[in-house]
Amino acid sequence: MKIIPLGTSSGKPTLHRNVSALAVVGEGEWWLFDCGEGTQMQIARAGLSPQKLVGIFISHLHGDHFNGLPGLLSSMALDNRQKELTLVGPTGIREYLDLLSKLKICHVNYPLKLHEFDAYHFKERTEERVYESPRFTVATRPLDHRIFALGFRLEEKMKPGRFDLEKAQALGIPAGPLYGQLQAGKAISLADGRVIEPAEVLGPPRPGKIVSYCLDTRPCDNAVILSRNADWLIHEATFTEDHLEESHHFGHSTAIQAAEIARAADAKRLLITHFSSRYGDTRSLLEEARTVFSATVAAEDLQELEV
Amino acid sequence: MKIIPLGTSSGKPTLHRNVSALAVVGEGEWWLFDCGEGTQMQIARAGLSPQKLVGIFISHLHGDHFNGLPGLLSSMALDNRQKELTLVGPTGIREYLDLLSKLKICHVNYPLKLHEFDAYHFKERTEERVYESPRFTVATRPLDHRIFALGFRLEEKMKPGRFDLEKAQALGIPAGPLYGQLQAGKAISLADGRVIEPAEVLGPPRPGKIVSYCLDTRPCDNAVILSRNADWLIHEATFTEDHLEESHHFGHSTAIQAAEIARAADAKRLLITHFSSRYGDTRSLLEEARTVFSATVAAEDLQELEV
Repeated sequence: MKIIPLGTSSGKPTLHRNVSALAVVGEGEWWLFDCGEGTQMQIARAGLSPQKLVGIFISHLHGDHFNGLPGLLSSMALDNRQKELTLVGPTGIREYLDLLSKLKICHVNYPLKLHEFDAYHFKERTEERVYESPRFTVATRPLDHRIFALGFRLEEKMKPGRFDLEKAQALGIPAGPLYGQLQAGKAISLADGRVIEPAEVLGPPRPGKIVSYCLDTRPCDNAVILSRNADWLIHEATFTEDHLEESHHFGHSTAIQAAEIARAADAKRLLITHFSSRYGDTRSLLEEARTVFSATVAAEDLQELEV
Repeated sequence: MKIIPLGTSSGKPTLHRNVSALAVVGEGEWWLFDCGEGTQMQIARAGLSPQKLVGIFISHLHGDHFNGLPGLLSSMALDNRQKELTLVGPTGIREYLDLLSKLKICHVNYPLKLHEFDAYHFKERTEERVYESPRFTVATRPLDHRIFALGFRLEEKMKPGRFDLEKAQALGIPAGPLYGQLQAGKAISLADGRVIEPAEVLGPPRPGKIVSYCLDTRPCDNAVILSRNADWLIHEATFTEDHLEESHHFGHSTAIQAAEIARAADAKRLLITHFSSRYGDTRSLLEEARTVFSATVAAEDLQELEV
């Protein structure tokens, strides 16, 4: 798996940073978190296939996280997409897409599975599962921004344990398709009548990878919960600490606050992003975050990070 | 004056061509025709100041001509624009901007002068003047696309004739501020009591520059009328002639049809644009157009053309 930031600037693009969007790429499927203006061009530059995109997760409806959506949806229609697409975000997206369709601005002709949420929804529930494939799930919880915003946790399901070749040979299992059945978790019968359970040749089940996405938000409990033990926490860090008050006022986090979330969640690594365009480079943000959480990386458009 | 194409691809962007947008740059003011996704980034790459943008003219509401609008409008708000902006386009823009404002996607806090038109409007009128500044006017007429579309004619007003220095000296006018007053069209009085009229020292008034913008459209009379004697006709040429039927079906023009409009309008030069992404380069389109109208140029993103 890998992470590819497609846009890392807050509010408006700069010559070197597009507005918010980030791809998480699995095997044969990938997910898009936020979709600022220009995201479809960044997807092309990153060499990602829109045909393999299975889910779009919109954090909130500010334009810099959202304005690339109609272009991307339309281009997939022009390219004759047939496959279902999951689209998750705050309430308002359906009304928006309906108006765009009425005005002919954008028309989607492939199956779109839309899940919309608002603050009322989360008065009765704490978390929603919004995507599930054979190998992955995505869950969402509300964050704490100026307008209603959602954070996400992409989680690979438990993977079967490693196949122990020596044990298999010692048990006299002939090499071939029976190995595959055991690896897939199925018991097998041998020619001599013995039944071999998968647990006899597999190590303990292995936890899958976890990536969490928390922007835009002030520091909040749900960001910690979504990021518990994450391999990568992607958290906004709009400002340095000298803009703490402004950051709080506009519903954002400082680099140090992002690092505190990573530490509290026991995340393995932190990727900070969504930088105010006032910062020519990210050195000051990165230095501050690392005083709290050393395994911090500052996102750059189109870089590739291994999960 | 100059023309800077900001996006020259139809439908969806390619790695080298953004979707439709084009800047016409005067002295101290410039105008944007169409605003596809990514236009604000192209404006930055072209080195144009959004603060000096005075009018946006939207041809029609297909997303590839329109999806960059909320991002550009929002970024100008973030940059504390104060100056009035004229916005012209098909009916639906107000409803769209109202919904975006309600959903917090985009909010405009500077004066926006919106003119919307639909097909019914042009049953009773043939043309509308939609912009006027001391030096320029913009007029619009409907074109012939799959959905309602507008073409535009940007016209510089008549300019005063050239100042004839020899005549001024022969009349005994002292060099200095009096020259400027005559150039500005004001009569002056000399110390000896003579009154000098501007016509005595100025050549005949000179016609201003004309740029017309006709996309998306099938060939139509209004494209010819808007482009009469234009210094530059900017016309769509989505297809080569071997796709004539497809072109007509989707409401577009071939390169040859664009050239025929230029010839019929007595335009000085033709800029073809809005190329189908099937064309890796524009050679075939350009060759076909030049068989009809030799002064044809194929638009490239971010090139600069003198008017």
